[in-house]
Amino acid sequence: MAQALSFTAVAGIPAVAPGDDLPALIAAALAQSGSTLTEGDALVVAQKIVSKSEGRFIDLRTVTPSARALELAAITRKDARLVELVLSESNEVLRAVPHVLIVRHRLGYVMANAGIDRSNVDSRDGAERALLLPVDPDTSAARLRAGLRTLTGVAPGVIVSDSFGRPWRNGVINIALGAAGLPALIDRRGETDLYGRRLEVTQVAWADGLAAGAALVMGEGAEGTPVALVRGARHDAPEVNAQALVRPIAEDLFR
Amino acid sequence: MAQALSFTAVAGIPAVAPGDDLPALIAAALAQSGSTLTEGDALVVAQKIVSKSEGRFIDLRTVTPSARALELAAITRKDARLVELVLSESNEVLRAVPHVLIVRHRLGYVMANAGIDRSNVDSRDGAERALLLPVDPDTSAARLRAGLRTLTGVAPGVIVSDSFGRPWRNGVINIALGAAGLPALIDRRGETDLYGRRLEVTQVAWADGLAAGAALVMGEGAEGTPVALVRGARHDAPEVNAQALVRPIAEDLFR
Repeated sequence: MAQALSFTAVAGIPAVAPGDDLPALIAAALAQSGSTLTEGDALVVAQKIVSKSEGRFIDLRTVTPSARALELAAITRKDARLVELVLSESNEVLRAVPHVLIVRHRLGYVMANAGIDRSNVDSRDGAERALLLPVDPDTSAARLRAGLRTLTGVAPGVIVSDSFGRPWRNGVINIALGAAGLPALIDRRGETDLYGRRLEVTQVAWADGLAAGAALVMGEGAEGTPVALVRGARHDAPEVNAQALVRPIAEDLFR
Repeated sequence: MAQALSFTAVAGIPAVAPGDDLPALIAAALAQSGSTLTEGDALVVAQKIVSKSEGRFIDLRTVTPSARALELAAITRKDARLVELVLSESNEVLRAVPHVLIVRHRLGYVMANAGIDRSNVDSRDGAERALLLPVDPDTSAARLRAGLRTLTGVAPGVIVSDSFGRPWRNGVINIALGAAGLPALIDRRGETDLYGRRLEVTQVAWADGLAAGAALVMGEGAEGTPVALVRGARHDAPEVNAQALVRPIAEDLFR
């Protein structure tokens, strides 16, 4: 358990384009800000720049909505092409009401619009761009970690984070879509407390906590800083990636 | 927006008993650890010690389960007296399956067991104690803030936090049950991004982010530290308490 922990926004990440070497951009920004990665550091990286570097843009002008997309677009009052993209990235529609489309993403995340983003995407060339989530955020995190190890000699923990709504609480909070080099979920099932009783809290969403804390310094969207450095967050639980944070469908009580 | 932010576990909080002066205990622990509160600091305080200081213990031996509690106890395989307490603290049962009882607490929180805790409650005198949430966590937070102002001359932001499960994600994360002196929810509805489009993320659960980050240094239960000091989390949004984080029932899509 850490005694003290700090989150610092990493300034100097430029606009990211498809094919950009994200580890190199992050390493340069860290160097520019005088930060040297040390063992036990972690980086929280906004999903948006990961997706951009991976070229996950779709031009909505190329999308033809299906009948199902048209139907859901009418209900949700959303662009039918965007709805078509959401469906293509999802396994199940959980709720569709005016202005709200909540789905189970193909990777299991339950989220609005399958995480597809239109805001802050530059459209000066006339393209109506939407940005999908990375193909596999855990793999993206592992790749960032490996790239940073090569560049700096130190392999930080890496989290790919995104903002999530919650069913019963107002406001978004950031969670971990992907993680590498840290225990995304800490599993203490079977352990007991000082009085010998079974622990009531047995699984801790460690990477979600890191993502939520990092968001406090990263901010949102165009005004935000897409990378945060976390110091003091070392935990000796076994490394496990962020897919462990996705509750299996069979355990979903709210279907 | 903060550029850097730190969370530090505040060591030296003793076991808390009903009637204890919690602001005094916290101020003493801060002084002992050499920390001086400064404007813009915030404290995250575990619900458990707030409830204890407010004497929210119930001896289960004094509780007589109703027919409804007996019925739910059979389904959930929980102590019927505990279930009776849960019902007395709740407005609605959302899910009852083996080992899981999710309710809408009378203050609107959707949570397991209405936040009632049995683990880590000392039972050496033979009493089977359960610990309810504070009567009103926002009021508890305001009282802690006022008490600390009197004792130290500085009024910190205060969050009363608890761990929460989430319907579609494994592991708990900490959220803010109560808050004072900070913007628990930052409301940016109506604002636009650099390209003039309406912001997609318009409400940020700021206090939930602080609570989630603080949990990384506070830990859980008997081994944990029940108070964390947050530095650098000042935000210029209007102060609003944690009740703003509770989504109104009318907007609940998952009833």
